[in-house]
Amino acid sequence: MARAYNFSAGPATLPLEVLEEAQGELLNYKGTGMSIMEHSHRGKAYMAVHAEAIANTRELLGLSDDYAVLFLQGGASLQFAMLPMNLLGAGQTADYTNSGSWAAKAIKEAKLIGNVNVAADCGKEIPTRVPTESELQLTPGASYVHITSNETISGAQWKTFPKTEAPLVADMSSDILSRPFDASQFGLIYAGAQKNLAPAGMALVILRKELAERVPSTVPSMLKYSTHIENDSMFNTCPCFTIYMYMLVTRWIKKTGLDALYTQNVNKAARLYSAIDSSDFYKGTAVPECRSDMNVTWRLPSEELEAAFIKEAADAGFSGLKGHRSVGGIRASIYNAFPAEGVDALVAFMKDFEARNG
Amino acid sequence: MARAYNFSAGPATLPLEVLEEAQGELLNYKGTGMSIMEHSHRGKAYMAVHAEAIANTRELLGLSDDYAVLFLQGGASLQFAMLPMNLLGAGQTADYTNSGSWAAKAIKEAKLIGNVNVAADCGKEIPTRVPTESELQLTPGASYVHITSNETISGAQWKTFPKTEAPLVADMSSDILSRPFDASQFGLIYAGAQKNLAPAGMALVILRKELAERVPSTVPSMLKYSTHIENDSMFNTCPCFTIYMYMLVTRWIKKTGLDALYTQNVNKAARLYSAIDSSDFYKGTAVPECRSDMNVTWRLPSEELEAAFIKEAADAGFSGLKGHRSVGGIRASIYNAFPAEGVDALVAFMKDFEARNG
Repeated sequence: MARAYNFSAGPATLPLEVLEEAQGELLNYKGTGMSIMEHSHRGKAYMAVHAEAIANTRELLGLSDDYAVLFLQGGASLQFAMLPMNLLGAGQTADYTNSGSWAAKAIKEAKLIGNVNVAADCGKEIPTRVPTESELQLTPGASYVHITSNETISGAQWKTFPKTEAPLVADMSSDILSRPFDASQFGLIYAGAQKNLAPAGMALVILRKELAERVPSTVPSMLKYSTHIENDSMFNTCPCFTIYMYMLVTRWIKKTGLDALYTQNVNKAARLYSAIDSSDFYKGTAVPECRSDMNVTWRLPSEELEAAFIKEAADAGFSGLKGHRSVGGIRASIYNAFPAEGVDALVAFMKDFEARNG
Repeated sequence: MARAYNFSAGPATLPLEVLEEAQGELLNYKGTGMSIMEHSHRGKAYMAVHAEAIANTRELLGLSDDYAVLFLQGGASLQFAMLPMNLLGAGQTADYTNSGSWAAKAIKEAKLIGNVNVAADCGKEIPTRVPTESELQLTPGASYVHITSNETISGAQWKTFPKTEAPLVADMSSDILSRPFDASQFGLIYAGAQKNLAPAGMALVILRKELAERVPSTVPSMLKYSTHIENDSMFNTCPCFTIYMYMLVTRWIKKTGLDALYTQNVNKAARLYSAIDSSDFYKGTAVPECRSDMNVTWRLPSEELEAAFIKEAADAGFSGLKGHRSVGGIRASIYNAFPAEGVDALVAFMKDFEARNG
């Protein structure tokens, strides 16, 4: 089988060995005569998957017992609403940083629920970037401070996280488990699964359990973190197959180790940025100190050349390089599972394309 | 491979040929060099899956253009909240019928949002049943009338649907696409996927588009039906793999036809009910005229005998027969994909067990 180089921003490439394992046991999970998709979520076979998925997360992020690990439906987009519904009390203010499209979406939804202070706004700047810690105008006594750790569309990433008095909350959809970090800095972390974690259809939510106690009693059961903490993410039928895939992916991450994986990710990104910087033809979208290791974004001298680049790349087996429709340009998403040889092949293609069109 | 007889109430048995097709193309979807799980939800390969999933639904249920077909996350449990958040305006009343555990959950969540009138309550009666149309005490000018078409736990099913002035809404989680019915009777239908439709992780929602216009502007984007109608269920990354599986399952249903499938379902259920009725040892839980064709529930003379029955059945390869932990007893869930020979095998086991213990 010729495996495509899939630069899609999400759903994204998954580790081949994970896909192979899932395929091998898809009809008969561990000799039970059923697919893992067919097992009751309250049965022994699935419960072991669920428990390992949580244990792997705890181990990889070094989570203390103060934190709960939840598998929820609705992706990060539903978290944009659940977060303020649970943590932003009446008369309080939440601080949000605007670093681009995804931060702006989080802000928009939070404003429907309560008071929002935009503590820094560089959301529309080109070159793209995230705020610096010193420019944050934080609210004394804020409910929480929200950041978007990696802007999937603009390709800007927080390299270190700000120190805040209020609980720090991060949308880590596009860089969770791509690098080690101190999880105890955070009150709550959420991430859509379809980039580094699993197929689409799940959000990983990690939170200090005490924060879940703030929720008003009028919030529906499914939208309360406390419901899911009390029921170990099984208040209703959880997305079992997606969690199973997540378990396999986290097992795969553990095998390499988060530190080694991070080194690989930095190296992959560095090769692409080096190709961009060594050329006058390609121009990186993000300011150098905020460049994402996950979503590498750049422009060509014209939109016509960008269209030709994307088309020729697709013909050469590089899929998903078109920048997000809202901003254009080129975007190479190179998550954990994206192979280094695919990056090298793209760099060679870029040099060739420039030689022919530069 | 020895395939188990899986009587689980959900996640439940899936058609073997669907699982085989998914397995065959899991690593390389139609020669694209990627799994369907890895394809962008906005790419050509997945978009065709999405479109077919919607088209199959429209065809199987004969839906007019007045209806939207949505694939949402959060299962039926999130619909318990979304429904009143969207359709139950301030100062209005929604009528709910209480027919058992699932209807009661829908009522509990709706009460958090607005005024609820319980139009009939037989939720705790034993033998279990659903209300009759004549006992409904409906509210003039109600926002909608809610029924649970099949109570998965109690095994009671609405055989015909009430005529109501207000839009009729049904939770059809456990019997959707198991029988033909006139969808134009309904304002809104929702169903968790993990019984007749697909693996867990999705709710199918079918609604008259005009009803979505009622939603207050303060409802978060992800919780508004109008958002998902406008974006064809792609406001955020949809649960692509689950929708792919749903597409394969609906293709499989189309091949048999809903009428023929219904005949099969009735026949399967009739064989089990006949085994129950021809014995003094087994006793059906639901009143005969409300007996579910999907979830067949019965009791044995004692809880000890029930425990022995479940254990011996499991040893003989019959999985998932234990009644819901809230009510006990025996439950055989025999959805569309459950094979007739599995029902015959269970009937033989029942006769043997009775002979040894009766």
